Amino acid sequence: MALQPVLIAGQWRPAQSTGSFHAENPATGERLPDEYPTSAWADCDAVLTAAVEAAVALRALPAEKLAEFLTAYAAQIEARAADLAAIAHLETGLPVTPRLATVELPRTAGQLRQAAAAAREGSWALPTIDSKINLRSVLEPLGPVLVFGPNNFPFAYNGVAGGDFAAAIAAGNPVIAKAHPSHPGTSRLLAEAALAAVRETGLPPATVQMLYNIANEDGLRLVADPRLGAVGFTGSRSGGLRLKAAADAVGKPIYLELSSLNPVVMLPGALAERGPKLVEEFTTSCLMASGQFCTNPGLMLLLAGEAAEQFEAGVKEKFAAAPVNPLLSAGVGRGLLNSLATLRAAGAEVITGGEPVNTPGSRFANTLLRVSGEDFLAAPEKLQTEAFGNASLLVIARDASELAAVLDHLEGNLTGCIYSDTQGGDDELYQDLAPRLRRRVGRLLNDKMPTGVAVSPAMNHGGPYPATGHPGFTAVGIPAALRRFAMLACYDNVRPARLPAALADKNPNGKMWRLIDGNWSQGDVSI
Amino acid sequence: MALQPVLIAGQWRPAQSTGSFHAENPATGERLPDEYPTSAWADCDAVLTAAVEAAVALRALPAEKLAEFLTAYAAQIEARAADLAAIAHLETGLPVTPRLATVELPRTAGQLRQAAAAAREGSWALPTIDSKINLRSVLEPLGPVLVFGPNNFPFAYNGVAGGDFAAAIAAGNPVIAKAHPSHPGTSRLLAEAALAAVRETGLPPATVQMLYNIANEDGLRLVADPRLGAVGFTGSRSGGLRLKAAADAVGKPIYLELSSLNPVVMLPGALAERGPKLVEEFTTSCLMASGQFCTNPGLMLLLAGEAAEQFEAGVKEKFAAAPVNPLLSAGVGRGLLNSLATLRAAGAEVITGGEPVNTPGSRFANTLLRVSGEDFLAAPEKLQTEAFGNASLLVIARDASELAAVLDHLEGNLTGCIYSDTQGGDDELYQDLAPRLRRRVGRLLNDKMPTGVAVSPAMNHGGPYPATGHPGFTAVGIPAALRRFAMLACYDNVRPARLPAALADKNPNGKMWRLIDGNWSQGDVSI
Repeated sequence: MALQPVLIAGQWRPAQSTGSFHAENPATGERLPDEYPTSAWADCDAVLTAAVEAAVALRALPAEKLAEFLTAYAAQIEARAADLAAIAHLETGLPVTPRLATVELPRTAGQLRQAAAAAREGSWALPTIDSKINLRSVLEPLGPVLVFGPNNFPFAYNGVAGGDFAAAIAAGNPVIAKAHPSHPGTSRLLAEAALAAVRETGLPPATVQMLYNIANEDGLRLVADPRLGAVGFTGSRSGGLRLKAAADAVGKPIYLELSSLNPVVMLPGALAERGPKLVEEFTTSCLMASGQFCTNPGLMLLLAGEAAEQFEAGVKEKFAAAPVNPLLSAGVGRGLLNSLATLRAAGAEVITGGEPVNTPGSRFANTLLRVSGEDFLAAPEKLQTEAFGNASLLVIARDASELAAVLDHLEGNLTGCIYSDTQGGDDELYQDLAPRLRRRVGRLLNDKMPTGVAVSPAMNHGGPYPATGHPGFTAVGIPAALRRFAMLACYDNVRPARLPAALADKNPNGKMWRLIDGNWSQGDVSI
Repeated sequence: MALQPVLIAGQWRPAQSTGSFHAENPATGERLPDEYPTSAWADCDAVLTAAVEAAVALRALPAEKLAEFLTAYAAQIEARAADLAAIAHLETGLPVTPRLATVELPRTAGQLRQAAAAAREGSWALPTIDSKINLRSVLEPLGPVLVFGPNNFPFAYNGVAGGDFAAAIAAGNPVIAKAHPSHPGTSRLLAEAALAAVRETGLPPATVQMLYNIANEDGLRLVADPRLGAVGFTGSRSGGLRLKAAADAVGKPIYLELSSLNPVVMLPGALAERGPKLVEEFTTSCLMASGQFCTNPGLMLLLAGEAAEQFEAGVKEKFAAAPVNPLLSAGVGRGLLNSLATLRAAGAEVITGGEPVNTPGSRFANTLLRVSGEDFLAAPEKLQTEAFGNASLLVIARDASELAAVLDHLEGNLTGCIYSDTQGGDDELYQDLAPRLRRRVGRLLNDKMPTGVAVSPAMNHGGPYPATGHPGFTAVGIPAALRRFAMLACYDNVRPARLPAALADKNPNGKMWRLIDGNWSQGDVSI
């Protein structure tokens, strides 16, 4: 069978390839039939050249056109929903329902529509006008954005359809998607839908391009290429940090979403008040999608005592009884085994699980580990090794001050939760612990597991390094996510006819919020 | 005479020093009497430890306290205005009036007061509330900020008083200032004023700390230290990029303002219409403060022809006739000579000046160079060497397409200007050139020199790399400058009493703009 073509400059073209690969069905271990190319540098060069042209053309279009494309794309995805869910299921092992068909696909279409609304309305760009001195500024597109999608959300974070994609396009940039090689068929179907929408709405052909795979060194070269404006990456810490170094060396904006343990602190009053319910909540959150969520609670902090022992026993029982679902790929299983070895060598004890399940495909026993606060503090770095998958580590602190010390040794995380009782018995402890946790996480939760990530303007799916590369930005949440892929563009004494629409005296759509002489307004500049 | 003490943890303490230095009067070349320490790592360690404690204490204070401090500091500076102007004049050679006493000092006090107003009002932090799902986010302090001030603005960019300082404090962070060694006495007086304001308003003693000088390797170590939250740097490209590499390696936010040539394009219609006036404008802007402004127009682009020749002749005459003022230091003179050698070796011809002036102190002849567009395009990197000081390069392009090519080869700059005629004769050319220039500059001007940088919410004193480290941020302009020194902090399902004031249902001061359910509002969350 011929190699699948790649999407360059609005055409599906034969790749200039240096190799090829197949996806695998992780539920069965079977190789899937289609063969996909690893592109040579020539393909990277071609997408860059086409993207630069598209970037220039996009700047000349009204934002309404971007919105039309994003909306049309959402509809194209919905029209292919059954096929998309079927192939994504085959390539990732994730269930068609509810996960793929009724949760992730609608979320993906919804993100695209939210991005469309943001592009159309324009407030995301923080237009700011000082009418007295005729000084005006607004966020403008950065140029072609390279998006690396991860393995764990074949739709919602896909480089050619997900959150980074939607944000980059809505901000006015063409996207070069680097598909994740574990779900190339899903990415192909999505890219076909995107291309149909590009044609339907008359956008520049190279607004959306996609390569399936490239050599690591070509990835670094792409990131550093002056034709590229910015990079979005969701994936492993090691891969992300290599790309970050390449981007940093040339001063290129790169937005990373890397590993995160998402610590959860269960205070004693909460356990006493509603222990069995918390066992249930924690187990459900841990094992959702076999623990392969960026916001999976991988670290649970407890104060030593009878309540903690009961919590552990309850979770152990549920972990052992819960079904074992396939991992996203054989690679995830290998990574999990490696991480567990590191954790065990550093003093963590396996309470249940700890081994692959001997069936066809990639499955791993639901795994619970435990370590004392003292041992954690003796090797905090090793004991924060991410075990991506259905494994979580309990840290049992001797007392409140040891618990505080554990929090003070946490790396940057996307989320952190504190559960406390409803009668105020945990409040003093909360007051001491919450500020410590606050500084180390992007999103602080109360009495709620972190797994859900609402697409809301108030969301922060980001956090301090090494959870991401910059603590001021979020990957989820519109309009804020758009601002990552933009530069601040100021107009000083520029003549009225030459100003972008967002900065004209007249509000271009009557809805755009603009900061005019210090006040947010949907009106015109008063003359 | 004893070494001057350093400001650590609210006390002037003897430095742990590895050496010492004196400032020099650049107008005379004389060494000034006071001896200042180069601090050893022990001092760096001490300021970090104290700053961490101050950061925790500052978080617990209402923003009103920050505003009180910034306001009191502005008054303390004004109370010392005469002394400050006198010592800054001695150390920098800049004139007491108008520059130091009537322009830069009031600007500095004004920045502090604007920052105070922003801290008090709170809108800078973009509080965002999704009331339906009780999800809320706001920008919060990052932790201690290290500010490196440059040589060229002893007040307005001073690490212990300038724009980065004001922004970092207003965002709720303590500042560790690294004074510029060319004006240590000015920095000392400012730090004394800051300390008086800290005491007057009861802020944590280590809110403001200052060291005069540190070894390069200790600077890198400071930047990488996990106790430090972020870095602001204004200065040379080489020094800034070394610090950037150290910060990037540990994922620490660093905001840089590096070199910028600030290209000016003078279109033919403008020259024909008002040539002599433009000669005057350009000369004034070039020679202001001996060309030692970050926004000094170091590169002028013209189309070949009689008008360009007349422009050049006019500027040459004015440059030769204008007085030669001292440079900020002997080092600036050496740097200028080196840069001119690079430019000449790459094909630039000296039209006037080109040599140091043989007087006491550091003075350099007003220097104009010229190169053809063709030669520029043969060595665009070398011919964009910044000649910091009173030197500018004219690039004479053969035709419009060569001019466009020159713009396409520009590095990132803070500013770019286009002058055009008022009757529309240059409009076609403008339409082609402006988008090319737009992408490479933070602030695009029409018919105006870039030297003035208004402290306005709409200002962008930033731009694409290598003018700065990230094109989305500005160093001047409140409230935007504050957002550099902050992290996005999200609260998910957090109980009402535990929310920060900015995210409570009730608007904390009735003035704060918050994005509530998609609309900017100064009201409360409706229940």
